[in-house]
Amino acid sequence: MNDPNLFCVILAGGSGSRFWPLSRETWPKQMLQIAGEESLLRQTIKRVSGFFLPENVWIVTTEDKAQDIGFHLEALGTWTKKIRYIKEPIGKNTAPAVGLAAAYLHHLFPESIMAIMPSDHAIPNTDKFLTDLGLAIQGAKEDHLVTFGIKPNRPETGYGYIKVDKISATKKSGLLSVERFFEKPDLQTAKAYLSDGSYFWNSGIFVWKTSKILSEIERHLPSLFRTLEEIEAFVFQPSKPTNKSEQTNQIRHLYDSIESISIDYGVMERSENILMVPAQFRWSDVGSWTALDDIIEKDESGNILKGNTIDIGSRNSIIFSGERLVATIGLKDTVVVDTPDATLVTSKERAQEVRKVVEALKMSNREEHLVHRTVERPWGNYTVLEKGSRYKIKKIALHPKAKLSLQIHHHRSEHWVVVSGTARVTRGEEVFDVHPNESTFIPISVKHRLENRGRIPLQIIEVQNGDYVEEDDIERFDDEYGR
Amino acid sequence: MNDPNLFCVILAGGSGSRFWPLSRETWPKQMLQIAGEESLLRQTIKRVSGFFLPENVWIVTTEDKAQDIGFHLEALGTWTKKIRYIKEPIGKNTAPAVGLAAAYLHHLFPESIMAIMPSDHAIPNTDKFLTDLGLAIQGAKEDHLVTFGIKPNRPETGYGYIKVDKISATKKSGLLSVERFFEKPDLQTAKAYLSDGSYFWNSGIFVWKTSKILSEIERHLPSLFRTLEEIEAFVFQPSKPTNKSEQTNQIRHLYDSIESISIDYGVMERSENILMVPAQFRWSDVGSWTALDDIIEKDESGNILKGNTIDIGSRNSIIFSGERLVATIGLKDTVVVDTPDATLVTSKERAQEVRKVVEALKMSNREEHLVHRTVERPWGNYTVLEKGSRYKIKKIALHPKAKLSLQIHHHRSEHWVVVSGTARVTRGEEVFDVHPNESTFIPISVKHRLENRGRIPLQIIEVQNGDYVEEDDIERFDDEYGR
Repeated sequence: MNDPNLFCVILAGGSGSRFWPLSRETWPKQMLQIAGEESLLRQTIKRVSGFFLPENVWIVTTEDKAQDIGFHLEALGTWTKKIRYIKEPIGKNTAPAVGLAAAYLHHLFPESIMAIMPSDHAIPNTDKFLTDLGLAIQGAKEDHLVTFGIKPNRPETGYGYIKVDKISATKKSGLLSVERFFEKPDLQTAKAYLSDGSYFWNSGIFVWKTSKILSEIERHLPSLFRTLEEIEAFVFQPSKPTNKSEQTNQIRHLYDSIESISIDYGVMERSENILMVPAQFRWSDVGSWTALDDIIEKDESGNILKGNTIDIGSRNSIIFSGERLVATIGLKDTVVVDTPDATLVTSKERAQEVRKVVEALKMSNREEHLVHRTVERPWGNYTVLEKGSRYKIKKIALHPKAKLSLQIHHHRSEHWVVVSGTARVTRGEEVFDVHPNESTFIPISVKHRLENRGRIPLQIIEVQNGDYVEEDDIERFDDEYGR
Repeated sequence: MNDPNLFCVILAGGSGSRFWPLSRETWPKQMLQIAGEESLLRQTIKRVSGFFLPENVWIVTTEDKAQDIGFHLEALGTWTKKIRYIKEPIGKNTAPAVGLAAAYLHHLFPESIMAIMPSDHAIPNTDKFLTDLGLAIQGAKEDHLVTFGIKPNRPETGYGYIKVDKISATKKSGLLSVERFFEKPDLQTAKAYLSDGSYFWNSGIFVWKTSKILSEIERHLPSLFRTLEEIEAFVFQPSKPTNKSEQTNQIRHLYDSIESISIDYGVMERSENILMVPAQFRWSDVGSWTALDDIIEKDESGNILKGNTIDIGSRNSIIFSGERLVATIGLKDTVVVDTPDATLVTSKERAQEVRKVVEALKMSNREEHLVHRTVERPWGNYTVLEKGSRYKIKKIALHPKAKLSLQIHHHRSEHWVVVSGTARVTRGEEVFDVHPNESTFIPISVKHRLENRGRIPLQIIEVQNGDYVEEDDIERFDDEYGR
């Protein structure tokens, strides 16, 4: 533990649509608190936080998500600021993400061992997980690729499988020798796997030396390997001095050409001498709404009810609500998910097709797949209460001591009415306080800032008026949060 | 037609919970536009409006609903102001409502004939309805109680039945002689009724002389009859001069003692010489969400979709949405009804149990069964966008030329921001205009009024601040709408 050569690489680039409407493009599944007391990402970080040095936790994500993830993790403590980020210009599946992290780490720490894990899986038992992780690290030190297999308890067709060679098991270490990887099977095949006993679910968690995985990538994905070498050279040994934006553009250009391919398909299925830890911990990839049945305790009718719900006689159903009331009667095997601007009702059997809904929303230029009505920001959050022609109404909540950027809007004026707390307002050259039950007015094109210098949250209602009332009408001059 | 002795009495006292969450205690089923282009009540009024003199249309409803119904009907034209209202202090089922109307009408017009009809049924074919109504009036003139029977097309267990004596049919007039009334049957009995051919659904529509029904009430419901006589005497021949509030109290006292009983059970099942019109028109009592299957055309998958919906592969389902998005996948025989503050999802089979949800809401002192988030008023409407501790945010829309009452709030101040139109504001002694993108402030206990003198709707955002932000903190000094 806390070995300076041990790194944890967390893959957090997903913007999956499988948990819509709770997940949005800007608020992906790993940020959701769907199982347990924290978001899946925070649980992942907490799970490994005693095992790895804080600065040895690296998160691979896309450029547009890195800042939100950073803010999201701050709630766990200031030590999370030590976490490093590798920002992909665009998501390219797991092989490039793993390769990029391996290239960076290997350059900086040639002896490094990396544990790769998704940010959006559920693993309720941390102790058992860390014990198994220790086993895997032993295998990795002996130059093996090590993976984690989960003992199946049903003929699941949604997971890939790992077949182990039971006879060749290296019993001493507890690790098993992998015979082959299999893609998601059909039901009949899954049943055969289940009864055979030598098949395990592929958890997507891996441990290996960075040098080892790079040599495997060189062998099985030579084109990816060459691009990684170029990126590495560009970042660490630039032939000429470059500024940050040049570097960003060049990396983006190189990354664009990379093939989107998973580490399982690109490397694991083709490599040899892979070992598998038969996991002692419980695990779910939380792959769809129905996966909650595996990880959340049901009531005596087989239901999972959350939020503001009234149910009469439903069975085996999942009802997720927030503050709005959802009343359900006599449902069977149904999933209902309610959010302030959209509701999903689906049979469990077809819950995976929620992707099609998200596709339809994209096609018709809607917004319900992009953002939530309440948007979390580093300084607090805002909720769009109403949007009409030429106006928008927001509720804005600022944490104590938080301040928005100094900014100008070119197309709208704003009325602010304080409902609780005290607002310190900068308006042009003036600086003044606005108390509950008072209001102020920010004309178009006047530089302004909203700040909460108090000890309780500040809540204001903002009424925007103008020809154009979108979020991108903002020019920032000074920002606490480096935006 | 337009016979001064012909009266139409429309029963509009219902506050049913069967269409929750679209219906609320203050916005009952008859006000809903669920089938056709207008609300069921407006359709009912339009259906009879050429047949009866406007002043011969009487609506029986409860005191608390009469004003809302009046405002609701104004959209049909100023002639609706001629409609008369009989206000029950409290709903007491149909026998007292019919009796009260008969007593009033008979006192004023001893020769009157009354057609009784519910305000919340669907009858798509007006011409056929009026033809049948003409037949019924002929029967009533010959001193019969006349009812309308609907030819059943399925073994419905939700309706009462009428058995006719086919042999004794008075073929000449097209009227059939009624043998007996039956309460809602079980399925097996309903199947027998259907195959027998001499059973009809009881539509709840009746025609008779007021003198005839009063004598039947005297015979079968003597206690009700005596109370009606007392009320009649009190209203029309008071022994001493009374003011309006005394009168109201006395009638309330008398009405409280009346037994809640239906006209079918109290009179029709016990009377003789009843005739039935075998209705030529299509009819539904719109008794539950699933009744929509009979009156709204379905798509090729058997679905009824309304509002902002995306459906993937559902069958035989009813999906009602407003502006919020409802996405549905693979549902079967399911009803989904979405409103701004509550969503219902129920199997069709158990849709009637929505009453239990409403009961549960009542028990727990919730508000979702009482009012909608948007409340219709004679001057326009308001929508509660957000309510929190010590504050409430409303969007208020005023029709052109409309004005709110001159009023005072004792526990809250109000900020008004105009988003469209021009607001004429009275504040204490001041009168001034507020334009889009301008705001004003109404302090606690200052007399004020909001008015739209313009030609386009006025929209404002109101932020209320105070210890108590409920609707009943209002003292009115002058009100256009007589409140």
